[in-house]
Amino acid sequence: MVKRSDIVLTGDRPTGPLHLGHYIGSLKQRIELQEQCTQFVMIADAQALTDHAKEPEKVRANILEVALDYLAIGIDPTKTTIFIQSLISPLFELTQYYLNLVTWNRLKHNPTVKQEILQKGYGESVPAGFMVYPVSQAADISAFKATLVPVGEDQRPMIEQTNEIVRTFNRTYNCNVLVESQALIPPIARLPGIDGKAKMSKSLGNCIYLSEPADTLAKKVKRMYTDPNHLRVEDPGEVEGNPVFIYLDAFDPDEKKVEELKKHYKRGGLGDSIVKKHLLEVLEEFLSPIRKRRAEFASDPQEVMKMLAKGTEKALSVAEKTLKEVREAMGIIYF
Amino acid sequence: MVKRSDIVLTGDRPTGPLHLGHYIGSLKQRIELQEQCTQFVMIADAQALTDHAKEPEKVRANILEVALDYLAIGIDPTKTTIFIQSLISPLFELTQYYLNLVTWNRLKHNPTVKQEILQKGYGESVPAGFMVYPVSQAADISAFKATLVPVGEDQRPMIEQTNEIVRTFNRTYNCNVLVESQALIPPIARLPGIDGKAKMSKSLGNCIYLSEPADTLAKKVKRMYTDPNHLRVEDPGEVEGNPVFIYLDAFDPDEKKVEELKKHYKRGGLGDSIVKKHLLEVLEEFLSPIRKRRAEFASDPQEVMKMLAKGTEKALSVAEKTLKEVREAMGIIYF
Repeated sequence: MVKRSDIVLTGDRPTGPLHLGHYIGSLKQRIELQEQCTQFVMIADAQALTDHAKEPEKVRANILEVALDYLAIGIDPTKTTIFIQSLISPLFELTQYYLNLVTWNRLKHNPTVKQEILQKGYGESVPAGFMVYPVSQAADISAFKATLVPVGEDQRPMIEQTNEIVRTFNRTYNCNVLVESQALIPPIARLPGIDGKAKMSKSLGNCIYLSEPADTLAKKVKRMYTDPNHLRVEDPGEVEGNPVFIYLDAFDPDEKKVEELKKHYKRGGLGDSIVKKHLLEVLEEFLSPIRKRRAEFASDPQEVMKMLAKGTEKALSVAEKTLKEVREAMGIIYF
Repeated sequence: MVKRSDIVLTGDRPTGPLHLGHYIGSLKQRIELQEQCTQFVMIADAQALTDHAKEPEKVRANILEVALDYLAIGIDPTKTTIFIQSLISPLFELTQYYLNLVTWNRLKHNPTVKQEILQKGYGESVPAGFMVYPVSQAADISAFKATLVPVGEDQRPMIEQTNEIVRTFNRTYNCNVLVESQALIPPIARLPGIDGKAKMSKSLGNCIYLSEPADTLAKKVKRMYTDPNHLRVEDPGEVEGNPVFIYLDAFDPDEKKVEELKKHYKRGGLGDSIVKKHLLEVLEEFLSPIRKRRAEFASDPQEVMKMLAKGTEKALSVAEKTLKEVREAMGIIYF
């Protein structure tokens, strides 16, 4: 499905360290995509500020953390362009031009934004910057002429909004400067939290981080939610929707072993503590090299920042080229 | 009232040539202000695009026209920094940060914007860019640390919105980087149209342009609205609200002569055609040197564009400095 000529834009808001949910939902895919096509990974600090305007220090601090997570899991800056959003000034300018092509009413009815406003309890006090962030995303995606945008199912309306703007722009200015993009939905979209809730999320406090130390990892696995009706070892247990088995499916490379454990659990006689012990081994085997590489990169943060500066410079030149084409199409090149 | 240390930001949307209403409402004042303090004059192409997104060629073409009008009336580029808004990229970035400090609800209730939406008949299809333009104006004003902003009475809410953002920014980031500004209301705010309507406006087709040729000027003065009850020469006429006398008050340097004409008109015996003949002489005396200087500058448009490039470069360096301070205050300087 992915073609060599494809351009991927993806990224994260730097509001906290990345966790296993991020890994399964998108980071893992990026390691594959960087071998298959052109990939841009954006640390979306400007977007993070739309709902963290009062905590810029948090955004600032997490830029390095997120970059370390990227490097630790194997996103390779020689293959993937990693950059900081707010340093790509053409994105701000594109946003403003695109805002003229979208009605206020359309923004009000973006389903993803409506849902997020509810979740955040903004009500009438939603920041204007938050309401317009789908247009900023259209600027991000179109500036890099991305053809594939890895997103969860709930983010599809963002791609639709982007493509609407792309089509309106090309039609209004009678050009084909901007390119439509497609959502790339990951195979396993979502990892549940250790509490069994549908989504691993920092704000729910149910995460295992990519940088999780071995001791807290053990504690978190031990208190993981399983089948609440599996009271005695000899009882049959449920594996569907059971986070322990979902994690094993996601992280245990020995599929046969997982199948055997599932069968045993279903017919009874397999205690949660045994399954959890195995899961801990699997996760520790997965996380320990990541932790080690992370520590190596973290020992020289200046080198990491240098890598970010280089990626940002490259991304800037791509976005500047698109902005120039956009201004040419609009006929507003003056000198 | 104006201090040497004051910084003025003002400007025009390049959507058409400037007219006598612009001159009385703001251009005249600029010629004085450039002798008294620091003045930036912005050709607001990006703002014009918020409601002319489908006509960028109109905006583009009028940049030179507006610049010619400026030079023709005596705005001196060695004293006033004249620049093109869309080439000052920090303005777009500032706009985005400020949008995070303003609620969506607040934007919805901006009285000036509400009024303009009614006038333009936008209804629900108002472009998002138009709704957020007060925030772009806050970026314009604050980027230059303007202390005085010449605006009409109806634009006061824009200055209030700007000062709200300035205060919120300084409070949120615990700094005093941004500066509050004051509205500078011109002595004669508004010149009526030649049809007697309250405002001279291109869309009403009731303007006399600064570039008006002598022959069309004569025609326009001839068909000017006067006192509709002044039917016969011997009848007493009304001078209050009579455009012909308002124009004389604004443009005839011979105040005594104007007083005499008014008295004569009021007591009767002075025909409209006589007063109009005098007004035509006065306007022709005012416009003829402007027309001449305009033609001189228009003969070398490249020289004018060079002047704009120079002003834009200067304005850019000022705005870049402010943006740097803003990012420092937010703690988002990375390299």
